[in-house]
Amino acid sequence: MEVKEGMDSTRTGSDRTRRFLRLATLALLALLLVPVTTSAETLQQVLKRRGLSQQDVLAAAKTYVPTGKRDEYVAFASGGQSGMVIVYGIPSMRILKYIAVFNPEPWQAYGFDEESKAVLNQGRINGKDITWGDTHHPAISETAGDYDGQFLFINDKANPRLAVIDLHDFETKQIVVSPVFQSEHGGAFVSENTEYVMEAVQYPAPLGGEYSPLERFNEDYRGGVTYWKFNREIGRLEPKNSFSMELPPYSQDLSDFGKLASSGWSFTNSFCSERYVGGIERGRPPFEAGCSAKDTDYLHVINWRKAAQVAAQPGKTKLINGHKVIMMDTAIQEGLVYLIPEPKSPHGVDVTPDGDYIVISGKLDSHTYVYSWKKIQAAMAAKNFEGKDPYGIPIIGLQTALHTQVPLGLGPLHTQYDSKKGIAYTSLYVDSMVARWDYINGKLLDRLPIHYNIGHLMTMHGDTVKPRGKYLVSLNKLAIDRFQPVGPLHPQNHQLIDIAGDNMQLLYDMPLPLGEPHYTVAIDATLLKPAVRYKVGTNTRTGEISPHKTRAGEERIERDGNKVSVHGTLIRSHITPEIIEVDEGDEVTIHLTNLERAQDQTHGFTVSKYNVNGSWEPGKTATVKFTADTPGVFPFYCTEFCSALHLEMQGYVLVKPKGYKAKVGALMPKDQYTQADYEKQVKACNETQTVIDSVVGFITERNYKDFPPVVALVEDATEQLGYADGPKQKAAEEAAAGNYHSATLWAGQWWQYQVKAADIGLRAKTYLEQHGAKKVQ
Amino acid sequence: MEVKEGMDSTRTGSDRTRRFLRLATLALLALLLVPVTTSAETLQQVLKRRGLSQQDVLAAAKTYVPTGKRDEYVAFASGGQSGMVIVYGIPSMRILKYIAVFNPEPWQAYGFDEESKAVLNQGRINGKDITWGDTHHPAISETAGDYDGQFLFINDKANPRLAVIDLHDFETKQIVVSPVFQSEHGGAFVSENTEYVMEAVQYPAPLGGEYSPLERFNEDYRGGVTYWKFNREIGRLEPKNSFSMELPPYSQDLSDFGKLASSGWSFTNSFCSERYVGGIERGRPPFEAGCSAKDTDYLHVINWRKAAQVAAQPGKTKLINGHKVIMMDTAIQEGLVYLIPEPKSPHGVDVTPDGDYIVISGKLDSHTYVYSWKKIQAAMAAKNFEGKDPYGIPIIGLQTALHTQVPLGLGPLHTQYDSKKGIAYTSLYVDSMVARWDYINGKLLDRLPIHYNIGHLMTMHGDTVKPRGKYLVSLNKLAIDRFQPVGPLHPQNHQLIDIAGDNMQLLYDMPLPLGEPHYTVAIDATLLKPAVRYKVGTNTRTGEISPHKTRAGEERIERDGNKVSVHGTLIRSHITPEIIEVDEGDEVTIHLTNLERAQDQTHGFTVSKYNVNGSWEPGKTATVKFTADTPGVFPFYCTEFCSALHLEMQGYVLVKPKGYKAKVGALMPKDQYTQADYEKQVKACNETQTVIDSVVGFITERNYKDFPPVVALVEDATEQLGYADGPKQKAAEEAAAGNYHSATLWAGQWWQYQVKAADIGLRAKTYLEQHGAKKVQ
Repeated sequence: MEVKEGMDSTRTGSDRTRRFLRLATLALLALLLVPVTTSAETLQQVLKRRGLSQQDVLAAAKTYVPTGKRDEYVAFASGGQSGMVIVYGIPSMRILKYIAVFNPEPWQAYGFDEESKAVLNQGRINGKDITWGDTHHPAISETAGDYDGQFLFINDKANPRLAVIDLHDFETKQIVVSPVFQSEHGGAFVSENTEYVMEAVQYPAPLGGEYSPLERFNEDYRGGVTYWKFNREIGRLEPKNSFSMELPPYSQDLSDFGKLASSGWSFTNSFCSERYVGGIERGRPPFEAGCSAKDTDYLHVINWRKAAQVAAQPGKTKLINGHKVIMMDTAIQEGLVYLIPEPKSPHGVDVTPDGDYIVISGKLDSHTYVYSWKKIQAAMAAKNFEGKDPYGIPIIGLQTALHTQVPLGLGPLHTQYDSKKGIAYTSLYVDSMVARWDYINGKLLDRLPIHYNIGHLMTMHGDTVKPRGKYLVSLNKLAIDRFQPVGPLHPQNHQLIDIAGDNMQLLYDMPLPLGEPHYTVAIDATLLKPAVRYKVGTNTRTGEISPHKTRAGEERIERDGNKVSVHGTLIRSHITPEIIEVDEGDEVTIHLTNLERAQDQTHGFTVSKYNVNGSWEPGKTATVKFTADTPGVFPFYCTEFCSALHLEMQGYVLVKPKGYKAKVGALMPKDQYTQADYEKQVKACNETQTVIDSVVGFITERNYKDFPPVVALVEDATEQLGYADGPKQKAAEEAAAGNYHSATLWAGQWWQYQVKAADIGLRAKTYLEQHGAKKVQ
Repeated sequence: MEVKEGMDSTRTGSDRTRRFLRLATLALLALLLVPVTTSAETLQQVLKRRGLSQQDVLAAAKTYVPTGKRDEYVAFASGGQSGMVIVYGIPSMRILKYIAVFNPEPWQAYGFDEESKAVLNQGRINGKDITWGDTHHPAISETAGDYDGQFLFINDKANPRLAVIDLHDFETKQIVVSPVFQSEHGGAFVSENTEYVMEAVQYPAPLGGEYSPLERFNEDYRGGVTYWKFNREIGRLEPKNSFSMELPPYSQDLSDFGKLASSGWSFTNSFCSERYVGGIERGRPPFEAGCSAKDTDYLHVINWRKAAQVAAQPGKTKLINGHKVIMMDTAIQEGLVYLIPEPKSPHGVDVTPDGDYIVISGKLDSHTYVYSWKKIQAAMAAKNFEGKDPYGIPIIGLQTALHTQVPLGLGPLHTQYDSKKGIAYTSLYVDSMVARWDYINGKLLDRLPIHYNIGHLMTMHGDTVKPRGKYLVSLNKLAIDRFQPVGPLHPQNHQLIDIAGDNMQLLYDMPLPLGEPHYTVAIDATLLKPAVRYKVGTNTRTGEISPHKTRAGEERIERDGNKVSVHGTLIRSHITPEIIEVDEGDEVTIHLTNLERAQDQTHGFTVSKYNVNGSWEPGKTATVKFTADTPGVFPFYCTEFCSALHLEMQGYVLVKPKGYKAKVGALMPKDQYTQADYEKQVKACNETQTVIDSVVGFITERNYKDFPPVVALVEDATEQLGYADGPKQKAAEEAAAGNYHSATLWAGQWWQYQVKAADIGLRAKTYLEQHGAKKVQ
């Protein structure tokens, strides 16, 4: 864009003017005053028309990510009752993916193909399918206390389970069911090198699932924590190398692993240490009254590294449902567990980046407590306890362990850390605010109102040894009036806050359109290295090559009694085979392999009315099954708009009824197309080839090899064009034999491959034009 | 913000300078150069740091919607294989809601509570649950040809079905199964006053689901269209008043209703009018080759208004599966259907806002065809036909009907209209572009590259009699490199384009994180009037008051043999009842009513390990069921973070095993709390009351009644505080009787209600502070 001539005259103004109006400014001034195209608006006009303030346009500029550019951070939010994980970019706050974890989800075909059903089936409980989950606390795998971007762990609070997502392909790979708890909350949290993934119970119940009446709450109901062993090599949790620790029935809640100074330890808080049992319907005050009667609850301080050693010793654990549990007496004897009073009804327990302090807020206490790990260690070493709890666990006095206590506001809940030493952010639920404060000197620095009722909050790498600062996300529990209304069930609101400056600044309101996130973690986007395709024939849920991998030319339909198995392939724009004939009552199994190598060339597959649905990313092999119990004609097709001829990527399953008597009929005559039709089609092919040649010329005359996306497109186009040779040759052979009908059709298929190649080539050409590719010799 | 003094000196510059630097500009200059807070960045610094161009900041300013402000338009996108509808705001492109339609979805509890299961069960086919759908074409209900914002219709292509969503609460209310088709595509489309909702078949098959071999394709396989009668009063489709028309096996595709000039008619296109049957595995060229061999396919022109009259006459229809079908012979005899050649492999058929023209693009023809309704009418009146198709349907000659033919580019697909007369936008799939053109004068005006491979496109009210112009959304089928990678399965990309000026300008790339949208419709946001609560006790799926509506005090647990039924309530922060004791094998039914009236106060409910999950918006009554086949202790809790004491909104289902022998035990002693505890709690209550009084004082001293959201908050706070009276009184009574334990707990419950009231009051106070409320006398 040119700067208008008139602007130069400002250079004749005073010195003070000159100071402001340097060349760089001129370009921006031009932006304000000169429309980009003749009739377009200036920025000034846009602000006026849209009623935007100066603060708004700054926020817009801080969050807008132009086409093709990338976000700086990638966030993983739990999806609450949706059972999913939500992936979004920061600062654009655009949602990039919902990953189905505990719920069947048809777009990803999760729980639809046999391979993913096998993952969901790992999560069955008491013989029942559990078709949802209450995901709460995602955790990214860590190396040396910082996120490494390899795996994501997520819990199900309602049906105590943990799942593993591989960030290589963003798919759920494993679900484990807690062998001892009836519900959980405080998971997932990972140790500094992802040796263990931790989950803590929520509501006390007899360990292992036994029945016991509420009258035996104190005797038989228990809490606990589980340390799931993670095997990074295979990317799976190992139940046989995992263990739990029995704890009092205190409604254990969130946890955190120690780091650096506090390495080897973990911290778990609790609420309702009153052990109150409600019963409004019986005339007793409700749980909410009795569970908040005392001023403090208990923080559990656990030596997990030593506990792992104890769990490995014979006779030190009790096997419950085949799972090792360190019972309380052993834990106390071995010095594995201590209690410290903590503020009333706490939620987050958050170890500082250096591991020196543990910060805890109680939602019904307006102070946030900072505990000193040094003081806690000293108390444990000196056996300086103020007493024991009813189960014999030593209690370290609050004042003995406390570093400081800071009044931040009402309903403090969760704390995250800044890249700046000593700076923390705490959510204030009742106040609907975020507090920025100094946890070393115990000083409140700033507060920012949010909308509304913040639960957790999150800074970039904010719970690691190396927080990145920059952005904070406020996970608000109520949106109320923030967005265009969409009925009584509201989206949630995640607010992006700029924390780079001295004051916090609200940047963006993001509605969450599905699910209720509880906690979120965000990783530097450059640490994620996901793949775009699989090795051909991969069972993506196990990572192994499927025995049903099928290459082009290997497609087949086989029958064994009433079992029909199909090995087929998917490629732009046909499914092989195209006709599947079975008999009423047959059990039909269809194994499909996507032969594509090009990025984003996913194909889908469905057989109508048979609840058959699948999604095949490039290279994937997966299996769908149905029993052909209803006779009739059932179209199948590709459910992904994959190419111009996508609608023609179709076929039929024919289910012949028992006792069907054949009627006479014939397909369209084989002499429909004549020599003239054939020649017309060949002419079209030759003309299309001219277009392709010109596009190829354009591309190869430029430095296209400097643009990796274009190199990928050229590979794809070359492959598609390569496929054209077969039909082209068949067409010529049929024409030579005088079979012009068949020749015309094969020439048509030759043309189809040309169209696909042209489509890809044109995308490559546009890319080069838009990215300033240069002509080369 | 203040303008720096230095700026004024520019006024001493030349006249030309003065022309540019008027006062309004100064404020903006200040924005560029002066940070908003001391240490914050200027806009100029932000642009430099983030590498944004002038075009980028303009686009950011055109799309950014600040906190609490609303989007101008609301879009409803189909979700493809996800089975859902996606709701998003324009221009912010923020997704506001996923509405589950054909798939069970746990966040909304769709398919989890009995009431919504009843809706999903309407969509069962051949005795089978269909747990997904392939949603393609949403349609908003219309009045006089323009969107009225009352209902949304959406189809399932795979398992031919249609669903009705009520935009009063954005919930799916009805699913109907096609009684005649095996798959469909061309739905939903609505007539000008939503008399009928139309769907057309996709892949031909014998009507009604009979088996017939592919060798009888020409004789037995058929296409067709269905006109579903809509009853706006009850908001439901009426199968008994609906009818279909048999059509040739031409793979009918999309449709459109005529409007104004062409009122009473509908238009349906087709592909594979070759009636080709593929079979690669049998040595035949694939469908994609044989289905694109001819240069043209057929547009079906149907007189639906007359057809409705014919369908009502005795003897004029054939009943197939109880559904009226006008067979082809009757349709031809009655002059209900005509064919016109149309460009090869078309997708969209789009009637212009005045109804005068019909625009069709064939993906394998680089021309877009504009048909003249006047010419078509004249040909029909004069019986000016060029022949008949093999089934006897009269064919109007292409040149007879054509207004003009415009070469727009490669792979043209779908057309939408501008508010400016005669201006249309057409997607170009192969070219990856949008074309702006003049359909009256047949002139291409502008083309804009998109990323990548656009399918449908959409302008605001772009298929109505009154398009609004302003924005266009390009629904791209491939995203490839646009976003931070998230594995082999990519999000889709919807690109927002500014069409207000003379040139199209790309504004925003929106990733679609779940599902594959095919078509989208967008309505002026002010035309939507969704509710925020239900009448207490509403079965939201039927709109009727549930027989299981339960008010406070009516909660009860009843037993009839092995059937246990619970009538309970949900309110911040307890579930009544809190303890549910049943025996192993009992069938347990839990009816819950959310007593809340406050906006966004949804509660959830789950019983752990029993796959029980539900969502209760304010006023809703819904039912969950399970068989207590596994003995044990199963916590239940509210799954929505609804209040500070959300975690304490809990209870237990106890399933007593057969033959259980009681053990001795007792809850916590009833003398835990003393007079001192009681007095401490009362002191806390009194202190909290002081806080509340000061907040109340702040609010009532201001013109809070001018702020409807604050009025709602005050009502909610007053209600919560009202609840405090009961426990307060109980506490006093118990204290008077010397029962200090019980008195302390009840005083605690009094305090819980105070905390909720304070939370709401503080939100109201902040709102007034942020919105410049004034002190009143």
